[in-house]
Amino acid sequence: MNKQRTLDKQHLTRKEKWREIIFDANTPDARLFDVLLLWFILISVFVVMLSSVPTVYDNYGKLLTTIEWVFTIVFSVEYFLRIYLSKKPSNYIFSFWGIIDLLSTIPTYLSILIAGPQYLLTIRTLRLLRVFRIMRLTSYSREARALGKALRASGAKVTVFFGFILIIVIIMGTIMFIIEGPKNGFTSIPRGIYWAIVTVTTVGYGDITPNTILGQVLSSTLMILGYAVITVPTGIVSVEYADQKRKRNICEHCGTENENDAKFCKECGSDLSSS
Amino acid sequence: MNKQRTLDKQHLTRKEKWREIIFDANTPDARLFDVLLLWFILISVFVVMLSSVPTVYDNYGKLLTTIEWVFTIVFSVEYFLRIYLSKKPSNYIFSFWGIIDLLSTIPTYLSILIAGPQYLLTIRTLRLLRVFRIMRLTSYSREARALGKALRASGAKVTVFFGFILIIVIIMGTIMFIIEGPKNGFTSIPRGIYWAIVTVTTVGYGDITPNTILGQVLSSTLMILGYAVITVPTGIVSVEYADQKRKRNICEHCGTENENDAKFCKECGSDLSSS
Amino acid sequence: MNKQRTLDKQHLTRKEKWREIIFDANTPDARLFDVLLLWFILISVFVVMLSSVPTVYDNYGKLLTTIEWVFTIVFSVEYFLRIYLSKKPSNYIFSFWGIIDLLSTIPTYLSILIAGPQYLLTIRTLRLLRVFRIMRLTSYSREARALGKALRASGAKVTVFFGFILIIVIIMGTIMFIIEGPKNGFTSIPRGIYWAIVTVTTVGYGDITPNTILGQVLSSTLMILGYAVITVPTGIVSVEYADQKRKRNICEHCGTENENDAKFCKECGSDLSSS
Amino acid sequence: MNKQRTLDKQHLTRKEKWREIIFDANTPDARLFDVLLLWFILISVFVVMLSSVPTVYDNYGKLLTTIEWVFTIVFSVEYFLRIYLSKKPSNYIFSFWGIIDLLSTIPTYLSILIAGPQYLLTIRTLRLLRVFRIMRLTSYSREARALGKALRASGAKVTVFFGFILIIVIIMGTIMFIIEGPKNGFTSIPRGIYWAIVTVTTVGYGDITPNTILGQVLSSTLMILGYAVITVPTGIVSVEYADQKRKRNICEHCGTENENDAKFCKECGSDLSSS
Repeated sequence: MNKQRTLDKQHLTRKEKWREIIFDANTPDARLFDVLLLWFILISVFVVMLSSVPTVYDNYGKLLTTIEWVFTIVFSVEYFLRIYLSKKPSNYIFSFWGIIDLLSTIPTYLSILIAGPQYLLTIRTLRLLRVFRIMRLTSYSREARALGKALRASGAKVTVFFGFILIIVIIMGTIMFIIEGPKNGFTSIPRGIYWAIVTVTTVGYGDITPNTILGQVLSSTLMILGYAVITVPTGIVSVEYADQKRKRNICEHCGTENENDAKFCKECGSDLSSS
Repeated sequence: MNKQRTLDKQHLTRKEKWREIIFDANTPDARLFDVLLLWFILISVFVVMLSSVPTVYDNYGKLLTTIEWVFTIVFSVEYFLRIYLSKKPSNYIFSFWGIIDLLSTIPTYLSILIAGPQYLLTIRTLRLLRVFRIMRLTSYSREARALGKALRASGAKVTVFFGFILIIVIIMGTIMFIIEGPKNGFTSIPRGIYWAIVTVTTVGYGDITPNTILGQVLSSTLMILGYAVITVPTGIVSVEYADQKRKRNICEHCGTENENDAKFCKECGSDLSSS
Repeated sequence: MNKQRTLDKQHLTRKEKWREIIFDANTPDARLFDVLLLWFILISVFVVMLSSVPTVYDNYGKLLTTIEWVFTIVFSVEYFLRIYLSKKPSNYIFSFWGIIDLLSTIPTYLSILIAGPQYLLTIRTLRLLRVFRIMRLTSYSREARALGKALRASGAKVTVFFGFILIIVIIMGTIMFIIEGPKNGFTSIPRGIYWAIVTVTTVGYGDITPNTILGQVLSSTLMILGYAVITVPTGIVSVEYADQKRKRNICEHCGTENENDAKFCKECGSDLSSS
Repeated sequence: MNKQRTLDKQHLTRKEKWREIIFDANTPDARLFDVLLLWFILISVFVVMLSSVPTVYDNYGKLLTTIEWVFTIVFSVEYFLRIYLSKKPSNYIFSFWGIIDLLSTIPTYLSILIAGPQYLLTIRTLRLLRVFRIMRLTSYSREARALGKALRASGAKVTVFFGFILIIVIIMGTIMFIIEGPKNGFTSIPRGIYWAIVTVTTVGYGDITPNTILGQVLSSTLMILGYAVITVPTGIVSVEYADQKRKRNICEHCGTENENDAKFCKECGSDLSSS
């Protein structure tokens, strides 16, 4: 009986240890697992990308399929391991990451069942959802969190700003639809708005361009607007990020506000860089 | 007599209540009205946009016209309600928003009277002026006001800057007109200036491109200029916005200047975030 | 004799008054003169631009020529007035602005003497040099000076930065010339560099585009580089402009350094906004 | 014997003096050498670039080859001088700069040995590696080092950011490959990613453009994303550069932290601008 309990405990600790490796990011083993997983994801994404190139697939199709199967089995094992190790499996399965994990693994299995090549293409590309998994791995990082905070801080103002851009784009797209008309490529208001977005963001494909004098004058205005107004959200994000950074320098230990570039709290000497 | 007065008062308070709902933005009812109106505007704008797509109009023209009539009636009721509820109706009617409201509502009525389809198109698109109304709804917001302040603060300097860009663009457009000439698409100075704007704003449609060596050298200079100089207004707006934000942290209650990131006044404890 | 002296003095003061009006910018009369001159320049520039549009010139050539002659006579009078009023005429004549004034006025006179239409075109467009004169009028402004200061402050660093961009562009242009070769439009290294500048500045005309896989990988790198590195000079200019602005808040009267947003010196009460 | 020693010493000091001239950058002679070398590099790079233009090479090929030989001999002399003057020649030879120096000098010699014109082209263009040498000359500068520091400071955050852009680009490229398909130019996922990079960086060549409605809606989103998100790294670099600049104002002599715009240390009076 005592032996049984020890075994149980050992079993438990082994499971806990694996849980730590897979779900945490702070122990050396967990880090190694994350780095390994990152490489697996990157290579498998690269393989999926290569498979989509006709000339590559015609020549190396068999090799790529084999590699894909290896990765699929690895990711399947990881998926079931995550379910097994979760304290509450359903939490993981129905979480955003759980669904991503499933959707990016099953396509290879489905490719046996489904015959039509056109469906296969769409299903196979689902495997590229794995790139989202990179985000999970990096979302642990302090930098990503700091960025997220700064973005949330400037969010409301930047949203107002892009709402304004959207209104401009709708109005300009409509005006250009009336001025230039279908014969110059502005076949509908949505297409005019597409052109206005291409122009205001300074992308400028050149697939639709103004041909009338008035159209060129108006689009010049829109270009200068797009070129100029980007300064506004840039300013907002800069200032909010500066504030965010300064706020982070309040010592977590004693609450003293330190200089922007202080490394240790001037009151209690705590390491500020850890916060 | 007393009854009459009470009725009058009741009638007055009901009118006042409606006025509050429609013209204000701070009571729960007024907010609900604004949100409802915003959705009505957005959907009606979407319907107008869809109507301009030939394939959609050919198939769903009748449905879209019906929806449009429903919205037109709703907006008409709202328009007359605004006139009726205004303390001085003429103020509203001849205000910028009043004219927008009228112009974006009457096209549907006009479409019965006017037969020619080409005029109809222009008149129907007038309904898209409704997007301006979104601006009114959002102009209440604190974010929009803060942005407006920052822009006004950097206005004079940014204007000087864009005046400089304009001079560069006129000179470069003229030089390219002389160098490249009509056979390379630079048919006139205004067209050269249009090209220069397309280039300096980094839009780069590619509808007019330099073909001579000298023209390519000059346009390279213009591109680098356009790429480089945008840093200047960005810097200006950033700094002015930072100053604007800092200024806003002067306590409205006691006038004490607080730290940039303070939430409450250090002298009197007032909530600074409300200002 | 006394009368003669008074007349002399009166004559002198009239000359001085005119000098003040034309060369200064601070008295009401001088301001009026500047604004008038600005409008004359703007309209005459607009006329020159219109004259270059073939369809406009064919229809309104005579009218435009008449207007041009009126402006030319006005600018000629102004030119001789400037020479006459200068304390040392040769200083004005051989200054940058003096040469601009001359070069932008004589083309109309030359057009009588020269017959060949192709030379005429180049000479006539010389009149557009008048836009430079707008710069003189605006160079008085405090905003333009503040901008100039900030640019000079960040100059050295931004130059280093654009030197780096130049090196990247030369190397990438050369590599692409080797990879893509003349058959894909990269006919020489200078043309490769032209393409690299079009790409790194995010202009992207699309007149030369990479067609090989390797070329597309490399140009993707160049695009991301161009998209990313503009953040660096923007940061530099922002910070230098902020410093420049703060420096300007040192009271000119007593030398005390004031808060960034102070309007009056905290020591002596002088108005800081005038500096 | 005594004479011999003096000669030895003199010889040594001459060698040391030359070493100083060539490897240092602080004495007037060393500066002169650097400026001279910079001009030699610039002119020789210009000559290589000109040689690649077919029409120029056909007409001035002989002249350009002669000039190239002069430069090659000068750079060869410099190369051997550097080896001779190095305290440990192997250190120089196998350093990055040593390899660049060698690789950019030998092509001219190889051009005698190798006959095939297509190899010659590639080898000849190797000489353009000389532009890297400009970097060495400028890397001494304080501005370049300050920039480098600011970039390293913002490195981690900006990397996270561009990792995010990369994921977006992979996902959007894949989605567009599925939506638009090979008939609209999206022949493979890598090509879709190339398009996504062209779009998100606002380059917009227009060699591949979306043709379906859904494709245009998605690419509009990508454009706005690319237009908007550049504000984030700009903000980061601005703030980090500001911090970097402030840090530099710690007096090197006594360690006192001075005001951002102080020119002399407030404690010991040392010149802060020299640091």
